[in-house]
Amino acid sequence: MLANRPRLRPRGEREPGVTRVDLAELTPEPLTYLGQVAYLELAVFERLTRVVGSAPRLADTEALSVAAGRVLAKHHGFVEEIERLGGDPIRLMGSFQPQVDAFGLIVSGATWAESLLSVHVTTGLLEDFFVALSGGLPEGVGSRAAHLLALDSGEAAIKGVLGYAIINDPRLASTLAMWGRRLVGDTLLLARSALHSSGEFVSGERYIEPVFSELIAKHTRRMDSVGLTA
Amino acid sequence: MLANRPRLRPRGEREPGVTRVDLAELTPEPLTYLGQVAYLELAVFERLTRVVGSAPRLADTEALSVAAGRVLAKHHGFVEEIERLGGDPIRLMGSFQPQVDAFGLIVSGATWAESLLSVHVTTGLLEDFFVALSGGLPEGVGSRAAHLLALDSGEAAIKGVLGYAIINDPRLASTLAMWGRRLVGDTLLLARSALHSSGEFVSGERYIEPVFSELIAKHTRRMDSVGLTA
Repeated sequence: MLANRPRLRPRGEREPGVTRVDLAELTPEPLTYLGQVAYLELAVFERLTRVVGSAPRLADTEALSVAAGRVLAKHHGFVEEIERLGGDPIRLMGSFQPQVDAFGLIVSGATWAESLLSVHVTTGLLEDFFVALSGGLPEGVGSRAAHLLALDSGEAAIKGVLGYAIINDPRLASTLAMWGRRLVGDTLLLARSALHSSGEFVSGERYIEPVFSELIAKHTRRMDSVGLTA
Repeated sequence: MLANRPRLRPRGEREPGVTRVDLAELTPEPLTYLGQVAYLELAVFERLTRVVGSAPRLADTEALSVAAGRVLAKHHGFVEEIERLGGDPIRLMGSFQPQVDAFGLIVSGATWAESLLSVHVTTGLLEDFFVALSGGLPEGVGSRAAHLLALDSGEAAIKGVLGYAIINDPRLASTLAMWGRRLVGDTLLLARSALHSSGEFVSGERYIEPVFSELIAKHTRRMDSVGLTA
């Protein structure tokens, strides 16, 4: 049966940690997918620039500005992908704006460190999720989307800045760990809302749980790598 | 006499509208110059991202995000230039942070349109000024600095967004025109403070006025091009 559905074929060029084929039946139309991811990256850029603007040390501002530039380049990569398919980026992104902006408010954080952890953790979860979904896109679009999502977003800089903040204020570790846990639920809700819902949705449910388990496992490693308990 | 002072030699590769040789005696040391320009571009990026974050239409957000990316690339170009000369970007930029941040507050603007016009107008003036100053830098550094400063900062996008706002709210034209006039004085003060002051400063004074006249003439054309009276 898989042989009759080429869009279910998994991509072999990288090992993203989540089997992308699993969610193929739930993958939205290419332009819908690209519009959502393009707007997500733009929103991440905006959230990150707010953190850049309130960074306590110039060295942090500088390091995070590099990360912001990388996120913006990803966003523009997805806009180009939309244009390549003849779509209207503004219209496509606009339909996701209310939901993504509301999400951005919920996960904005009360402090500079919370905001930065939120950008790191929610973006990591969502990018992993959209890599998993990309297996359901047509061959070329899917592999280019997965490639763009896998590009470096300045994670090393963010980890460095967060790690430094935590070392210099050990009380931060427990509040940030708690905050990191709170972010997971809202982020997975946003991810779930991106799934194509059709008559097949119920049969697709069984694919979602294992994928989400993998996303959470990767989240735990991400928290670990900045010295926080997930 | 000019033959004995190679740092006074004007660069021939472009016509920046201001004779760069005029300010050569007042040009600061290369690393001081680069540190100030690098921090200025970083501050412009931050100011522009605040405008991006509060843009009324997603199409404006998208257009201005491209401009923000260009400004950030300029900033990183100057950071690389500092590293090429063996300087410490954070330390060099840091010494200009208080002054440039204070300037950013003064010219921040009360509305979204004022903030955007401010970024456009003050950055244009300061970049023209630092191009004029670059003639006093050693050959390679000076031409690379002038080249970086002349790179597109998404001016077309900013002009488009501002022009659209003005057409849709004609009352804006008079308040923005007034605001544009107010920006000139503070910007030229910041520019003047960048000049190398030494025993020669008084003799250098006679070079400043014609250069500033040219900067103001270019400012007038810049205001004109968004439909505002300077």
